[in-house]
Amino acid sequence: MSEIWIGFDADDTLWHNEHYFIQSYALFAELVAPYLEAEHDDAEQAAHDLLVATERRNIPSFGYGIKGATISMIEAAITASHGEIRPEQILRLVDRAKEMMEHPVEFLDGALDTIDALSQHKLVLLTKGDLKDQHRKIEMSNIAERFDAVEIMHEKDGPTYRKAFDRFSIDPVRFVMIGNSVKSDIIPVLELGSAAVHVPYRTTWAIEVAEEPTAHPKFRQASSMHAVPPIVDELLG
Amino acid sequence: MSEIWIGFDADDTLWHNEHYFIQSYALFAELVAPYLEAEHDDAEQAAHDLLVATERRNIPSFGYGIKGATISMIEAAITASHGEIRPEQILRLVDRAKEMMEHPVEFLDGALDTIDALSQHKLVLLTKGDLKDQHRKIEMSNIAERFDAVEIMHEKDGPTYRKAFDRFSIDPVRFVMIGNSVKSDIIPVLELGSAAVHVPYRTTWAIEVAEEPTAHPKFRQASSMHAVPPIVDELLG
Repeated sequence: MSEIWIGFDADDTLWHNEHYFIQSYALFAELVAPYLEAEHDDAEQAAHDLLVATERRNIPSFGYGIKGATISMIEAAITASHGEIRPEQILRLVDRAKEMMEHPVEFLDGALDTIDALSQHKLVLLTKGDLKDQHRKIEMSNIAERFDAVEIMHEKDGPTYRKAFDRFSIDPVRFVMIGNSVKSDIIPVLELGSAAVHVPYRTTWAIEVAEEPTAHPKFRQASSMHAVPPIVDELLG
Repeated sequence: MSEIWIGFDADDTLWHNEHYFIQSYALFAELVAPYLEAEHDDAEQAAHDLLVATERRNIPSFGYGIKGATISMIEAAITASHGEIRPEQILRLVDRAKEMMEHPVEFLDGALDTIDALSQHKLVLLTKGDLKDQHRKIEMSNIAERFDAVEIMHEKDGPTYRKAFDRFSIDPVRFVMIGNSVKSDIIPVLELGSAAVHVPYRTTWAIEVAEEPTAHPKFRQASSMHAVPPIVDELLG
């Protein structure tokens, strides 16, 4: 029988990420809200909504990650302010992108223990986002030495999971994915016949929000990374 | 004995790329030069130089590709113009980035014939740049079906080539790399004991310019992709 593989998402599953984006969004809202106050009661919320709409429109072109998000912020800042935003304010968004590309790797509570607890299986890190930023975080964290395989995906959907399964000779029915995004980590693998454990992060990026497939027999939810190993054992049981 | 592997770079080796960046640089120079005319005799050249300096400084943060280049253009436009650049001009750089992310794949003359002529060996595509953009071009071009392996690298230096060799069980002394960049495709693989064929593109990005290792016994130069197969045969002979 083929080996059991356990897949881990990285951003907001093993280490904090959304947290840094929220700080960037707050900077964006602070810079842009003054231009929206005449038109909107809650100008910061209006700025945020405009940014999410811009990102949603731009992801098919730019993909995921800090750089694409930064270009979307610059675009949204210019259009939302009707061209009134000042160049030095745009430069603050550029500087923020550079800070983001250097943020430290902070593991989530229980992440390393859970990886170690499941290390009798084959382990694969399946992460999405900016190639440079993901490589940087993988190197800084020394996480690769705990994994049998690492794959940085440009998208997390059925076809890209299937390619990763082929690449590492993973049998989908003997695969369990662990991650914080229902849209990216859970639904596509359930559809391929795998099992999935959802470990919600404290916040979910608007673009990743999706309904939990609570009725699916191979779907489980864990309250934190600490709770994952017995759930995986039960799924494999 | 282990199998022979032939590595191909993609951008400006199999398909045109620099060409599109040159158009973006020309747009940048057109937008920024008017702000430099008081200080510089050749304002377009000064704009170009400022952009290259900004990119060189930012690549360690942003890595390679269209999105990082766009953020560098926006930064350079704001600083070079002392904040005088207008937001709608910045928006033109954003729009240009979107155009870039959709440009068609145009193969270089002889590229496909050369891949096919070397297909008795194992073939690996080793490309660098933006993950989203590279995946898009690999999919649009249907090129993956001609290769035994495909790897998108965040950098092309000794350690990243070594990782790719490990991943695909490539023996460095039985590997030949074909590419247009001396810095990225040639020097690092020669240093690992492999052979390399340089196929210069009509232009080289300022940041990729490097001296050719003409005296190295495993280095060859080809005038075009058409000339590559007999050179590879001779290197392997």
